[in-house]
Amino acid sequence: MENKVILDRDEILEESLEKIFQWLDEKMYFKAKNELLKFNEADIAEMFEELLEEQDFLQQAIVVYRLLPKAVSVEVFAYLPSDDQLKIVDGITDAELSYIVQELDFDDKIDILEELPANLVDKILVETPKAERKLINTFLNYPDDCAGSIMTPDYISLQKDWTVAQAMSHIKKEGMDTETIYTCYVKDTGRKLIGIVSLRTLVVTDDDVKIKEIMHADYVCVNVDDDQEEVSEAFKKYGFIAMPVVDKEHRLVGIITVDDILDVIEDENTEDIERMAGIVDLEQSDEEYLDKSVLKHAKNRLPWLLFMMFMAMITGAILRTFEDMLSAVIVLVSYLPMLMGTGGNTGAQASTLMIRGLALDEVELEDAGKVLWKEFRIALCVGVALSAVNFLKILIIDQESVSIAFTVCLSMIFIVIFAKMIGGLVPLIAKKFGADPALMANPVIASSTDMISVLVYFLMASLILGI
Amino acid sequence: MENKVILDRDEILEESLEKIFQWLDEKMYFKAKNELLKFNEADIAEMFEELLEEQDFLQQAIVVYRLLPKAVSVEVFAYLPSDDQLKIVDGITDAELSYIVQELDFDDKIDILEELPANLVDKILVETPKAERKLINTFLNYPDDCAGSIMTPDYISLQKDWTVAQAMSHIKKEGMDTETIYTCYVKDTGRKLIGIVSLRTLVVTDDDVKIKEIMHADYVCVNVDDDQEEVSEAFKKYGFIAMPVVDKEHRLVGIITVDDILDVIEDENTEDIERMAGIVDLEQSDEEYLDKSVLKHAKNRLPWLLFMMFMAMITGAILRTFEDMLSAVIVLVSYLPMLMGTGGNTGAQASTLMIRGLALDEVELEDAGKVLWKEFRIALCVGVALSAVNFLKILIIDQESVSIAFTVCLSMIFIVIFAKMIGGLVPLIAKKFGADPALMANPVIASSTDMISVLVYFLMASLILGI
Repeated sequence: MENKVILDRDEILEESLEKIFQWLDEKMYFKAKNELLKFNEADIAEMFEELLEEQDFLQQAIVVYRLLPKAVSVEVFAYLPSDDQLKIVDGITDAELSYIVQELDFDDKIDILEELPANLVDKILVETPKAERKLINTFLNYPDDCAGSIMTPDYISLQKDWTVAQAMSHIKKEGMDTETIYTCYVKDTGRKLIGIVSLRTLVVTDDDVKIKEIMHADYVCVNVDDDQEEVSEAFKKYGFIAMPVVDKEHRLVGIITVDDILDVIEDENTEDIERMAGIVDLEQSDEEYLDKSVLKHAKNRLPWLLFMMFMAMITGAILRTFEDMLSAVIVLVSYLPMLMGTGGNTGAQASTLMIRGLALDEVELEDAGKVLWKEFRIALCVGVALSAVNFLKILIIDQESVSIAFTVCLSMIFIVIFAKMIGGLVPLIAKKFGADPALMANPVIASSTDMISVLVYFLMASLILGI
Repeated sequence: MENKVILDRDEILEESLEKIFQWLDEKMYFKAKNELLKFNEADIAEMFEELLEEQDFLQQAIVVYRLLPKAVSVEVFAYLPSDDQLKIVDGITDAELSYIVQELDFDDKIDILEELPANLVDKILVETPKAERKLINTFLNYPDDCAGSIMTPDYISLQKDWTVAQAMSHIKKEGMDTETIYTCYVKDTGRKLIGIVSLRTLVVTDDDVKIKEIMHADYVCVNVDDDQEEVSEAFKKYGFIAMPVVDKEHRLVGIITVDDILDVIEDENTEDIERMAGIVDLEQSDEEYLDKSVLKHAKNRLPWLLFMMFMAMITGAILRTFEDMLSAVIVLVSYLPMLMGTGGNTGAQASTLMIRGLALDEVELEDAGKVLWKEFRIALCVGVALSAVNFLKILIIDQESVSIAFTVCLSMIFIVIFAKMIGGLVPLIAKKFGADPALMANPVIASSTDMISVLVYFLMASLILGI
């Protein structure tokens, strides 16, 4: 490949993919395979994602997959998302599957074993050496989303009394079978982690220096039960490329590398974004949008829709108690969408910033007072600006009376203030009571600003218009 | 520090911080400094973030900062967010600032120089060797958000004819002054990148092997003008810890390391989330919520609020044309919040999933048909479920007529279908025309579902109720 810059690469991939589809159609599998082998494994996996998506080409794609050199097929498998992995599992023999699973890096192995049906897992585990089988079972038992579920036991262990030269020759021997060699771990006889040393330090240090003299004894580590979100915060804070994971007795049980953290950050962000829009994935599956069934999509979306519908019914009931007022001045109805909409939008802006601020640790619970004061002032600016525009529009374009204009515009200012303050406060309250701000805040705010908008508006109307 | 697990660490930091505030209050600066030095630089920086936030302790905090050993003070400075860096810049002498800037890693140096006022930058650059000054000026000129703005020129260069032993001794010499030593770069005489080789490969390979025999010539790289979001996609896809950046002539101009990518992912996600809520940071500043002024907050929020208010005015005008109908059956008004709310919420769910799917490359433009068909079916499920609940509620609790119930519930189903399909489609259309889906989609959808809700509802009412 002459041209290697990422963007051009995408185009090249696209062109090759077209050729491959053509060849699959003509059952020219070897040509397709050779085209694929021009690329590296991550690229091949990306192309297989496309190939496996087309139901009509599924069988042919799997034929080509089986033609790949074994080492490549394992790497490609590791790069694929789990639903594509399962499609491949369905199409290959048990022997091929068993080979792939044995050859996968330990953390990828655990990931696929978690997805496979139990009888397949048993079949694979029978062929696994006993010590590894035990380790696999331990790893399979770590709950999703905790540090244990994303760590790997394949790390470099050094002895504290070794010299740098001894350590380097050990790394040279073990280096290809571990997840990373760039951070090495020093344990005592009781498997307790006593220090870490980076390969950089080893490389720049003289051969006869002892490991214990150069290792960092005040390393940072995570607990095996820690939430993966907190682990990714630690990676962001310290800028490490790997972190040790310890159990309660401070024994080293595995390490987490930064490449897995990139996925964690992405998943956690997706979860937050979806929750803010009232979508809750109860199964916490990582299926992509198009792969998820209609019923699953509906199930994830319904709960909050129902909740918000009930809340809107209450708003409707409130509206109903003002029926007489509405009949008397029916024009009031036409400003309702604007007032409710603006309330909802301004509230959502405040809560979104707050949810994000909390997620990134930029805002803390103690800041509630500051947040309220800030949102109050922002609301005044925004509310007055919006009202001024409105005032002119009502007088000049709608040609309504000054008292109607005052009713609408004063309501607007109060609604914006209420909405901004609720939007700023509810995420903090959710956090205070241990609820996920992203989950609770937006639906609650959308509903409550609606109610407040209606109440404020009719209160104003009865005060100003005397109805 | 005996206890090193992250979570306990947070508590320990908190306790120390309290002590330090106490000591600052009593002007016992050395005690405060010694307490800080129990921690590593990332932790010290985190504590300074808290210290610098309190206006009353700002002067004292800077005194303590100036007491830190020079090497530590540089590291801590590098870890601080830019607004805290500026607070420190204001409090230290020009000589101290100059020292810090000289000692910073190149990429951190560029970051702070971009934030400093021009006269300070000039003062610092005067003391910089000419070659580096030129390099700094080149780097300062890369636009924000492109690969050039996050890269560093501090990498390990190897010659293709060197042996592994020669390479290792070169790395040993240069290793401490580069951003990473774990990926090394091989250039030809014209500075063109011809291959990369990982330290892992060097370590496991025999001493007398030539670099050109083990280097990867089909490496993946990014262009200096590439958007940083695409760079982070590449990191996610390939799982690298560093990537080379080349110019149009394929000359190596710098490298990007994964620790900087973690920040990019976070920033890009924040931007997307804010845009979805109709907040557009025109200055693209990375100030945190509490540090941003009220006016800036208001300015970021107003444009879309105004747009949405205008759209809601149109909805109001539509509502107004149905005034007679409303006066005739005033109870219809009380179901408006629910119908408009449900339309907005269901539309937002669909668009949020679509925006996220586009951002993660899970959904592409060609999928528009699939998306519409999927959202249509999801909308049917969701719409029928919500309507069923509503139908019973209107008959039993509200005790309204069957025709009212039908009007509301049929409207509901149509509104949900429209909203879901618009929500699914608008982000794709935005993308098609080169607009940011996160920016365009949600406000447009919120406004258009409102209008559609009102239209559908009154159309149904006139059909079913014959008014």
